[in-house]
Amino acid sequence: MVIMLFKKVKKIGEDDPRRILHSFKVGLTLTLVCIFYYVTPLFDGFGSSAMWAVLTVAVVMEFTVGGTLCKGLNRTFATLLAGALGLGAHHIAILCGEKGEPILIGIFVFFLSSAATFSRFIPEVKKRYDYGVTIFILTFSLVAVSSYRVEDILEFAHRRLSTIALGVAVCITISTFIFPVWAGGDLHHLTSTNLDKLANFLHGMRNKYFGEDLVDRSYFQSYKSVLNSKATEEALVNLAKWEPGHSGFGFWHPWKQYLVIGDSIRHCACLMDSLATFITTLDKSAPLIGSNPRPKPDTEELYSEIRSACADMSSETAKALSDLANDIKSRSAPATARLHVAAAEAAAERMKMALSNGAEGGIVHVATIGSLVGEI
Amino acid sequence: MVIMLFKKVKKIGEDDPRRILHSFKVGLTLTLVCIFYYVTPLFDGFGSSAMWAVLTVAVVMEFTVGGTLCKGLNRTFATLLAGALGLGAHHIAILCGEKGEPILIGIFVFFLSSAATFSRFIPEVKKRYDYGVTIFILTFSLVAVSSYRVEDILEFAHRRLSTIALGVAVCITISTFIFPVWAGGDLHHLTSTNLDKLANFLHGMRNKYFGEDLVDRSYFQSYKSVLNSKATEEALVNLAKWEPGHSGFGFWHPWKQYLVIGDSIRHCACLMDSLATFITTLDKSAPLIGSNPRPKPDTEELYSEIRSACADMSSETAKALSDLANDIKSRSAPATARLHVAAAEAAAERMKMALSNGAEGGIVHVATIGSLVGEI
Repeated sequence: MVIMLFKKVKKIGEDDPRRILHSFKVGLTLTLVCIFYYVTPLFDGFGSSAMWAVLTVAVVMEFTVGGTLCKGLNRTFATLLAGALGLGAHHIAILCGEKGEPILIGIFVFFLSSAATFSRFIPEVKKRYDYGVTIFILTFSLVAVSSYRVEDILEFAHRRLSTIALGVAVCITISTFIFPVWAGGDLHHLTSTNLDKLANFLHGMRNKYFGEDLVDRSYFQSYKSVLNSKATEEALVNLAKWEPGHSGFGFWHPWKQYLVIGDSIRHCACLMDSLATFITTLDKSAPLIGSNPRPKPDTEELYSEIRSACADMSSETAKALSDLANDIKSRSAPATARLHVAAAEAAAERMKMALSNGAEGGIVHVATIGSLVGEI
Repeated sequence: MVIMLFKKVKKIGEDDPRRILHSFKVGLTLTLVCIFYYVTPLFDGFGSSAMWAVLTVAVVMEFTVGGTLCKGLNRTFATLLAGALGLGAHHIAILCGEKGEPILIGIFVFFLSSAATFSRFIPEVKKRYDYGVTIFILTFSLVAVSSYRVEDILEFAHRRLSTIALGVAVCITISTFIFPVWAGGDLHHLTSTNLDKLANFLHGMRNKYFGEDLVDRSYFQSYKSVLNSKATEEALVNLAKWEPGHSGFGFWHPWKQYLVIGDSIRHCACLMDSLATFITTLDKSAPLIGSNPRPKPDTEELYSEIRSACADMSSETAKALSDLANDIKSRSAPATARLHVAAAEAAAERMKMALSNGAEGGIVHVATIGSLVGEI
């Protein structure tokens, strides 16, 4: 049990060593803020509000730079806005005298928090400002309610804001300058890896069905993870949008294009999924279908013609895909990939000539890849 | 601009009126907690810690009962555990004297927060206890650090824990008893809706390609959302596991089975995606392929045979799917669905007899649906 857990932990660390680094970064940041808390002169200035800085660090530090920036900026600006509104509500409430004040504040809290909660259902808000809205509700309630109790409400709001800003600043600095993990880079990497996986599948399929009959079926699983990559991709795009320019990506890098490419890739993977199911069905009913194309001698030639066209198509498409993956990795214009696409298209044409049936997926692959190339 | 926003908001509310209810529920809960804060006798007991209750409500209230329970229980137990550990660290640190104390606490904070952050990368922890680990890091740092400053640390920890528990209790009560939104119910509904969407697609396809040639292509989009439903489904399953038994679902309801069914459904959708692409390609190159099956008079009969088998297959499969959707909705054993599957299988057999080519997807549909039926 313990050994299994240990192995699992080790594997997680080995899969992506940046995870270990990230853990230590969080530890470091928290310790830094704690030291800040220990140093007496500073502590006297902020009072017990200093603990907001600790709280901020624990909540804001994320794995990617984009995540930290997103949460940090959301937190800071939501606190600022909600603090200002809370003070405003406080001043209006005072006008109503001792008895009206709590009632009016209650009404304010009820309607503002309802409206803010509802805004979280709007997709655009949900994507980029979800955390900000939570903090907004929280801060507004706190300030509005505290104003009834704490005498120096302005001081309270000011201290809360400055400690939070401090915590956020420390988090952003550490996560940007010490071994940064860029969501944009991850997204880029994910896209090229996914293309590579598709290429692997086609290579594997070609070898098995149109070449030497290998027993190796590992390629069969390679595209599966691609099918479900949409959620990860969308999350990364949302985070990448927050990141400043870095290592070759500008601030205005067209992150949305990655979603378009991603959709094409998933579409390809979907077609491969169908192909794979078809192949599995073929395997099961091999005697039945395998004997079909051979009854007449005149179809024998046609059969081998289609076979070779299919083989060329899959190998050329696989080459095109892995070239595309490399091009994306090195961020160069696709050149060799075009050649392979052209070769695959030629094979597809040959195939069409020879009466297209069965491997309908192949043709569409090429069309999709063509559109993919156009997009880069 | 404002009108567009208004329309959008109206649409979001109309799509799911429970969202409006949820917003008011959050407003109500917050106002309740604020009133609690106003009432002087209680306030005197808890001191300024009472604001933790406000904070808890703002953060813990989620749309579904499962979400609220998950966050609430995570928050309570993580606070309890971290508070206890923090006190322990405090006692050990005291043994090292005035100078050693801050250093030792710094080391504790560094290593515990690093380890806890790393544990968030373990998938099982990430799924169910992610929020709890964040709160653990937060509370531990707060308690360990505060102990250096606040004299009566036990009192501090106690107050924090009791206000948080109070906030959580209010949240859980409100979200469970006032118009509850069950993640389990949503999951159940999602599964049957997805099945219905697939049935719609097949119905539409049958009408267009094997029946009267309708121009309506809306069915063409119906399966697309199914393809990307995995993330939603997994999130709902995770939340549903937290929920107590309700409206016919026991606490031990096999939620994981929904994921299995969901995977089959997505597999079906994937095959349909390929079919749809095939059909689109057909549309474009209609003259070329349309003329192919007709050259010899003896294939004419075969052609119409395959056509009718295909039409039967898709309509029977569509019926089977929508029956399955209804069965899931009413939670009864599939009976009529079996008949349709049998009919579809018979049609598939007829088709196989008539030399299977082209509509390979159909056969596999039936196989998948068969396995689906087996699972319910």
